[in-house]
Amino acid sequence: MARGFRIRTNKVGLPPGTVVHVGEERTGPVRITVIDYDQDHLREFCPTSLDMLAEFRSSPTVTWIKVVGVHTPEVIEEIGRSFEIHPLVLEDIVHTDQRPKMEDYDDRVFIVLRLLSRVEGEGGRGEIRSEQLSLIVGRGLLISFQETDMDVFEPARDRIRKSKGKIRRLGADYLAYSLIDAVVDSYFLILEEVGEELEVLEEELLGGPTPEAAQEIHRLKRDMIFLRRSIWPLREVISRLSRGESEIFTEPTEIYLRDVYDHTVQAIEAIETFREVLSGMLEIYLSSISNRMNEVMKVLTIIATIFIPLTFVAGIYGMNFDYMPELRWQWGYPAVLLFMLISGVIMLLYFRRRRWI
Amino acid sequence: MARGFRIRTNKVGLPPGTVVHVGEERTGPVRITVIDYDQDHLREFCPTSLDMLAEFRSSPTVTWIKVVGVHTPEVIEEIGRSFEIHPLVLEDIVHTDQRPKMEDYDDRVFIVLRLLSRVEGEGGRGEIRSEQLSLIVGRGLLISFQETDMDVFEPARDRIRKSKGKIRRLGADYLAYSLIDAVVDSYFLILEEVGEELEVLEEELLGGPTPEAAQEIHRLKRDMIFLRRSIWPLREVISRLSRGESEIFTEPTEIYLRDVYDHTVQAIEAIETFREVLSGMLEIYLSSISNRMNEVMKVLTIIATIFIPLTFVAGIYGMNFDYMPELRWQWGYPAVLLFMLISGVIMLLYFRRRRWI
Amino acid sequence: MARGFRIRTNKVGLPPGTVVHVGEERTGPVRITVIDYDQDHLREFCPTSLDMLAEFRSSPTVTWIKVVGVHTPEVIEEIGRSFEIHPLVLEDIVHTDQRPKMEDYDDRVFIVLRLLSRVEGEGGRGEIRSEQLSLIVGRGLLISFQETDMDVFEPARDRIRKSKGKIRRLGADYLAYSLIDAVVDSYFLILEEVGEELEVLEEELLGGPTPEAAQEIHRLKRDMIFLRRSIWPLREVISRLSRGESEIFTEPTEIYLRDVYDHTVQAIEAIETFREVLSGMLEIYLSSISNRMNEVMKVLTIIATIFIPLTFVAGIYGMNFDYMPELRWQWGYPAVLLFMLISGVIMLLYFRRRRWI
Amino acid sequence: MARGFRIRTNKVGLPPGTVVHVGEERTGPVRITVIDYDQDHLREFCPTSLDMLAEFRSSPTVTWIKVVGVHTPEVIEEIGRSFEIHPLVLEDIVHTDQRPKMEDYDDRVFIVLRLLSRVEGEGGRGEIRSEQLSLIVGRGLLISFQETDMDVFEPARDRIRKSKGKIRRLGADYLAYSLIDAVVDSYFLILEEVGEELEVLEEELLGGPTPEAAQEIHRLKRDMIFLRRSIWPLREVISRLSRGESEIFTEPTEIYLRDVYDHTVQAIEAIETFREVLSGMLEIYLSSISNRMNEVMKVLTIIATIFIPLTFVAGIYGMNFDYMPELRWQWGYPAVLLFMLISGVIMLLYFRRRRWI
Amino acid sequence: MARGFRIRTNKVGLPPGTVVHVGEERTGPVRITVIDYDQDHLREFCPTSLDMLAEFRSSPTVTWIKVVGVHTPEVIEEIGRSFEIHPLVLEDIVHTDQRPKMEDYDDRVFIVLRLLSRVEGEGGRGEIRSEQLSLIVGRGLLISFQETDMDVFEPARDRIRKSKGKIRRLGADYLAYSLIDAVVDSYFLILEEVGEELEVLEEELLGGPTPEAAQEIHRLKRDMIFLRRSIWPLREVISRLSRGESEIFTEPTEIYLRDVYDHTVQAIEAIETFREVLSGMLEIYLSSISNRMNEVMKVLTIIATIFIPLTFVAGIYGMNFDYMPELRWQWGYPAVLLFMLISGVIMLLYFRRRRWI
Ligand SMILES: [Mg+2]
Ligand SMILES: [Mg+2]
Ligand SMILES: [Mg+2]
Ligand SMILES: [Mg+2]
Ligand SMILES: [Mg+2]
Ligand SMILES: [Mg+2]
Ligand SMILES: [Mg+2]
Ligand SMILES: [Mg+2]
Ligand SMILES: [Mg+2]
Ligand SMILES: [Mg+2]
Ligand SMILES: [Mg+2]
Ligand SMILES: [Mg+2]
Ligand SMILES: [Mg+2]
Ligand SMILES: [Mg+2]
Ligand SMILES: [Mg+2]
Ligand SMILES: [Mg+2]
Ligand SMILES: [Mg+2]
Ligand SMILES: [Mg+2]
Ligand SMILES: [Mg+2]
Ligand SMILES: [Mg+2]
Ligand SMILES: [Mg+2]
Ligand SMILES: [Mg+2]
Ligand SMILES: [Mg+2]
Ligand SMILES: [Mg+2]
Ligand SMILES: [Mg+2]
Ligand SMILES: [Mg+2]
Ligand SMILES: [Mg+2]
Ligand SMILES: [Mg+2]
Ligand SMILES: [Mg+2]
Ligand SMILES: [Mg+2]
Ligand SMILES: [Mg+2]
Repeated sequence: MARGFRIRTNKVGLPPGTVVHVGEERTGPVRITVIDYDQDHLREFCPTSLDMLAEFRSSPTVTWIKVVGVHTPEVIEEIGRSFEIHPLVLEDIVHTDQRPKMEDYDDRVFIVLRLLSRVEGEGGRGEIRSEQLSLIVGRGLLISFQETDMDVFEPARDRIRKSKGKIRRLGADYLAYSLIDAVVDSYFLILEEVGEELEVLEEELLGGPTPEAAQEIHRLKRDMIFLRRSIWPLREVISRLSRGESEIFTEPTEIYLRDVYDHTVQAIEAIETFREVLSGMLEIYLSSISNRMNEVMKVLTIIATIFIPLTFVAGIYGMNFDYMPELRWQWGYPAVLLFMLISGVIMLLYFRRRRWI
Repeated sequence: MARGFRIRTNKVGLPPGTVVHVGEERTGPVRITVIDYDQDHLREFCPTSLDMLAEFRSSPTVTWIKVVGVHTPEVIEEIGRSFEIHPLVLEDIVHTDQRPKMEDYDDRVFIVLRLLSRVEGEGGRGEIRSEQLSLIVGRGLLISFQETDMDVFEPARDRIRKSKGKIRRLGADYLAYSLIDAVVDSYFLILEEVGEELEVLEEELLGGPTPEAAQEIHRLKRDMIFLRRSIWPLREVISRLSRGESEIFTEPTEIYLRDVYDHTVQAIEAIETFREVLSGMLEIYLSSISNRMNEVMKVLTIIATIFIPLTFVAGIYGMNFDYMPELRWQWGYPAVLLFMLISGVIMLLYFRRRRWI
Repeated sequence: MARGFRIRTNKVGLPPGTVVHVGEERTGPVRITVIDYDQDHLREFCPTSLDMLAEFRSSPTVTWIKVVGVHTPEVIEEIGRSFEIHPLVLEDIVHTDQRPKMEDYDDRVFIVLRLLSRVEGEGGRGEIRSEQLSLIVGRGLLISFQETDMDVFEPARDRIRKSKGKIRRLGADYLAYSLIDAVVDSYFLILEEVGEELEVLEEELLGGPTPEAAQEIHRLKRDMIFLRRSIWPLREVISRLSRGESEIFTEPTEIYLRDVYDHTVQAIEAIETFREVLSGMLEIYLSSISNRMNEVMKVLTIIATIFIPLTFVAGIYGMNFDYMPELRWQWGYPAVLLFMLISGVIMLLYFRRRRWI
Repeated sequence: MARGFRIRTNKVGLPPGTVVHVGEERTGPVRITVIDYDQDHLREFCPTSLDMLAEFRSSPTVTWIKVVGVHTPEVIEEIGRSFEIHPLVLEDIVHTDQRPKMEDYDDRVFIVLRLLSRVEGEGGRGEIRSEQLSLIVGRGLLISFQETDMDVFEPARDRIRKSKGKIRRLGADYLAYSLIDAVVDSYFLILEEVGEELEVLEEELLGGPTPEAAQEIHRLKRDMIFLRRSIWPLREVISRLSRGESEIFTEPTEIYLRDVYDHTVQAIEAIETFREVLSGMLEIYLSSISNRMNEVMKVLTIIATIFIPLTFVAGIYGMNFDYMPELRWQWGYPAVLLFMLISGVIMLLYFRRRRWI
Repeated sequence: MARGFRIRTNKVGLPPGTVVHVGEERTGPVRITVIDYDQDHLREFCPTSLDMLAEFRSSPTVTWIKVVGVHTPEVIEEIGRSFEIHPLVLEDIVHTDQRPKMEDYDDRVFIVLRLLSRVEGEGGRGEIRSEQLSLIVGRGLLISFQETDMDVFEPARDRIRKSKGKIRRLGADYLAYSLIDAVVDSYFLILEEVGEELEVLEEELLGGPTPEAAQEIHRLKRDMIFLRRSIWPLREVISRLSRGESEIFTEPTEIYLRDVYDHTVQAIEAIETFREVLSGMLEIYLSSISNRMNEVMKVLTIIATIFIPLTFVAGIYGMNFDYMPELRWQWGYPAVLLFMLISGVIMLLYFRRRRWI
């Protein structure tokens, strides 16, 4: 079973707001990077102590604190204390099986997305991996939490460094939009790959139904269930953000959010279409099997129907009765052969009339 | 048929508000425990008479009256009189086939949930048990009614005793939330088990379609229908509570209710996903059967198609006609053998070209 | 086809409001019973003339006029004139194929429900019967119209007579609620029976797929379609009544209506669940048939695959060629037998490796 | 393919509001009848020139102008000019593939309905015909456009002539209602016929699955798709009219519209039920085929499994080896016969134990 | 796989608002045509430089700038600068995989539609092509962007030139409506073709199930998925425009938009109907295969069941035992023949009674 369907419950019985990591087991240190910028200045560094983050709590510049790794509760709790984050939010950050959602805390917005990637699995097949991206967006502040260091945000970081686009002129809300946009763009990479696999699979199916093709169809169907579950709720999240539900997101950014909303809908539609295409493929597969069975049975029936009666006739004249007058006739043998030939031809004509051959 | 699908009707014809127990037959005494606490004091006891409950009707502390067993109408009616509970509510408490719901009576909220557990059934298979949990929440008062003493609330009680978390500082509404949270958490234990069974079942299916696997798929499908029916309406119940529909639930608790709402949605999504996965498995199962049938028929057809005509030829020369010149030829026998060999090889080549072998 | 699916059209072309009976053909006199009561007095009688009803048009007591039989238009029209009932309402009363609905005429509410029962049909099978119950509820007045004298209202009448429950203290709206409650309760009797039949059917299916079981599944599926159609719209009717849409229904009664609303939802859910269970059973049935076919084919293929080639070999040595050296060998016969045995064993091993045996 | 599924496009490229007839090709003159009435007077005539219609544009009486035939654009345009009808409305009148709809132009309402009938088609099978009925309703004015002269409005016209019912006392809106009611009533005639065919079909199916029954099921399924598409949008149309969306329709008529709304819902429900019943029949059909195949295969397998091995044994002793001691034994032949008998009986017992026979 | 299902992602990582062409690769110059008109004057020309467009930014006449080809970002960007178009809109114009949508920018409306056509594909089969049409509508200004020069707008241009219809009297919003109407009309050309193919396919199916028919069904099913995806969102777009959501579209045009809304709904309904018809065809196809298989198996079983036992009997008397008294009897041979004849006839009667023949 794909990893995405696993239910993890090691939190049962604990009081609400307890920061215990739930999810894929991971090790290694938590890496924190700080990027602080406005239109004129840029500062980027990895803090050696969590105390160094304190000064950014209400700096006028835009501060992006990028946290990679959420499996060390102490670090998350420390950050939570520094920035006064609600314990339930901290719990959601480390409990990495959340579905996409958005929670508005007036001066902060908490957003959860799924970071998806497609890696080479066993047997050379693409396997979809999913991790959680949590964003806390405030005025001039963005804290992002992710499980591993996927490079999906590299282009956005580059744009900040090189001051490309509007990113340096606008606030933390635009930065948050940029990250969400990068995530949604990455979904299309997966969908492109799946689309190509569908094309290959379709051509395979034309060559006849193989059990491997059936298994591949089912594997992809399940991938689509998983993708839909991961992306579907994001539509509502972005819709609410773009409709101005939170005060953190300003009007210029809302126009950009409408754009990423369009992309999300496109991704969902592609998934739905793939699902329908896969269902169609399964129908083709099953009707091909029926067809093949029909072919096989027709061959058997034609051969058996022609030869079983003839063998019976041969059996008659293979009997050892003392008194069988036909056996003594001069033309007995040719007559029987002729009779057999005529029977066979009649059978063939019958099959042709029924369009079996 | 699973117990959950049974319809029980021993109440027909009685006037509304009649307190008659409807549900699983149970015996034994009703056990009542009282936990009364505020931030500084804690008192826990089992009342020897129902009169002892009267003092808690409007005490300033938080009072949790935990009633285990609802099969003795007299006790329920007595409690109903003490705390002025509407007869229709009492009827719902003892009629234990309610679906999750919430009813607002201004100074009281009546909430019904399903307590689910998975026990070893016949044949070592997990079987889902369901009982009813009824909560009456007032200011400083929580009365809970359950059918048996499931230990799902032990952690919450522990937190009260040890003054862990916020539970001792907040009111009866937060206590009610804690119990609802414990119930929803327990759903995930069941879903985890089902998920693991799905993994096992999936691997079994790879080894070929067995009737046992089909039965297991259908058993789990039915379990999912049952789970969905038990959990689905809870989503609406918690949503209404968290949106502040009742005055009993205060704003700080509403944030916590939003958290348990997320968990309920996650549980429902897991159920839907399991359903889709099970449907996919059934498709795999059925297409495997078709495939197998195809294989079987191909073997039969190949063997029959090769040997039935050859047997016919042998039958020809087994006939006892006096005048059959071939029988007298020196090379008749080898010629027939050669002819048979060539026929067989041609058949094999034909099957190979049609990709049957 | 079940009676419920019949469409009856003997009303086409008549002007609207024409009172012509449409429905199951019935005979016999229309029976009218009047029960007039308040908290202190009770009067029950069968009026010998319709004029006797006039005095109850605006009496301060609660008057229940129970009309059994709607196939005599004159009686219905006479009552309509006495109580100033809209012609379209009279038409609906005698046109007994209405779906459940509620119409508010300020000082009157017109409610239609389906009275369902399950009777022994042909072949000892339960068959669902449906008739129409029409209620006209005013202040202090309830007129009920039903097609036959089902005893479903006996308990309510008993409660009036014996002054049990609240029924004597409250108005005509509570009486209407009591009748609706009795009707919904009677649905559960049907659902209980269906549930028990499902259990029996399920055990039958475990013993193997019989065509009778398939027919029974389809029969029950159709019953579920019929039940759903009869009950589903009632949900909306009761919801509107309980939300206070009509002024006739007072607030205390609305709480009771919420209770019967819960029961209606439970009934609908049970129907939906039964439908899903029946679909699952059909899947089991069909996959069992496939399995059986597979078994049959495997037996045929194993037998044929082993013996057809061997018969061919025997046929070879049954040929009558003059020059067949093997026939003359001393060990020819045992050698052939051994060869046949080895062939057979190899075949068996092959089948075992493919897990056919 | 049923006529209803044809898409007609001979209007592409023309400017909007062009009056070009699109639909079933028809010939013959356009017939116009005028009925002008109030409570006391009645006048009915066929105008010889379109100028005769001018006086009725704002007469205080109710004027019904009945136009039969919309395939002559000039006539429709002339009427349009006389009564100041919007070009887009005229276009809809002659483009006869509209779905039911209602458009409110303050002092006029434009309503489109489908007139359905069931005629004897090829092979004696009922075939559904559909044409368009367009109504323009104003104060004291109703213009109706239909394609052919179906007699569905005869009863309404009769009531006007004989002054039966309310029709002479009320306005053009009540007349419009009467026509709509007549159309909806005519749907039930079709549904009654289909219901009877379903009954016949069901009994046929009990006698075994024939390809003709399958084709009949599919034909009826398609009819249901067609009916649903023709009737479904009417529900919304009547609902909007009965909720007082247009000022043309007065309150007394709205009560009557609610009645015809009920009938529309009943018709839609009947269609949905027929669809579900037809799906069930198809399931019965397919499972019967599977059952039959199973029966056939069992007969084949039993016969083959018993006799193929026995034939092999006979083949053994039909071999012509010189040295076969059994052939010389006195009791060889009876021993072999006995062995064969025992084999056969064992086989039969095996089949009985597997419940094949 | 049809082109429509391909996902294209060469934009990942770029900042939002980057104008990079995404879609079908195309070459050739971008062709721009300007048509400027009011009721009295008309001017039509192809600008040699983009600067020539500047004067039309706020001219009082209606200006239609028709841009064919969006694969040259520089041109699009230049136009964007001239007319102050939002970068995100420019991006959508060149990213040609948008779904239909409408965005309101107060003094401008941005509308996206799909231009569909059906071309001869490989094997002479119709293949649906899709390109993007983007419209920017302002007061007195319409800029249209399309990928290739489909002639769908020729009739509208003709009407402008010849001053036919209202087009010259009304504003840019009416012009925009005319283009949308032309696009929706062109959908019906495709649907008409598909409808005709369905008719042909249906007749083919009556002649028996061929694998080609199954493939054709699946191909058309996929075309329907594609069409639905392309047209479905347009319904909402036009509905919003016709409900007056934008100030650019004036009330007279809104009536015309309601007309094109009707057509869109009709197109969607036709697609849905075709989908249902195709599903029905697949059911017919699959049940025909089952029927055929049944026929084939019956022939095999009848032949085998009659002749295998007879062959066994012949085999018995072909055995070479020394002591087989029947072989010596005078009437042995005729007796056996008679026995065989009777067996065969009994078998035939058995099959007839089971209705196999
Ligand atoms: Mg969905
Ligand atoms: Mg969806
Ligand atoms: Mg969509
Ligand atoms: Mg979607
Ligand atoms: Mg979609
Ligand atoms: Mg969908
Ligand atoms: Mg649901
Ligand atoms: Mg969801
Ligand atoms: Mg869900
Ligand atoms: Mg979902
Ligand atoms: Mg659902
Ligand atoms: Mg869903
Ligand atoms: Mg329904
Ligand atoms: Mg429903
Ligand atoms: Mg429900
Ligand atoms: Mg339901
Ligand atoms: Mg449900
Ligand atoms: Mg439903
Ligand atoms: Mg449901
Ligand atoms: Mg459903
Ligand atoms: Mg529907
Ligand atoms: Mg629908
Ligand atoms: Mg309904
Ligand atoms: Mg319906
Ligand atoms: Mg429906
Ligand atoms: Mg849809
Ligand atoms: Mg859709
Ligand atoms: Mg529709
Ligand atoms: Mg639709
Ligand atoms: Mg539809
Ligand atoms: Mg749709």
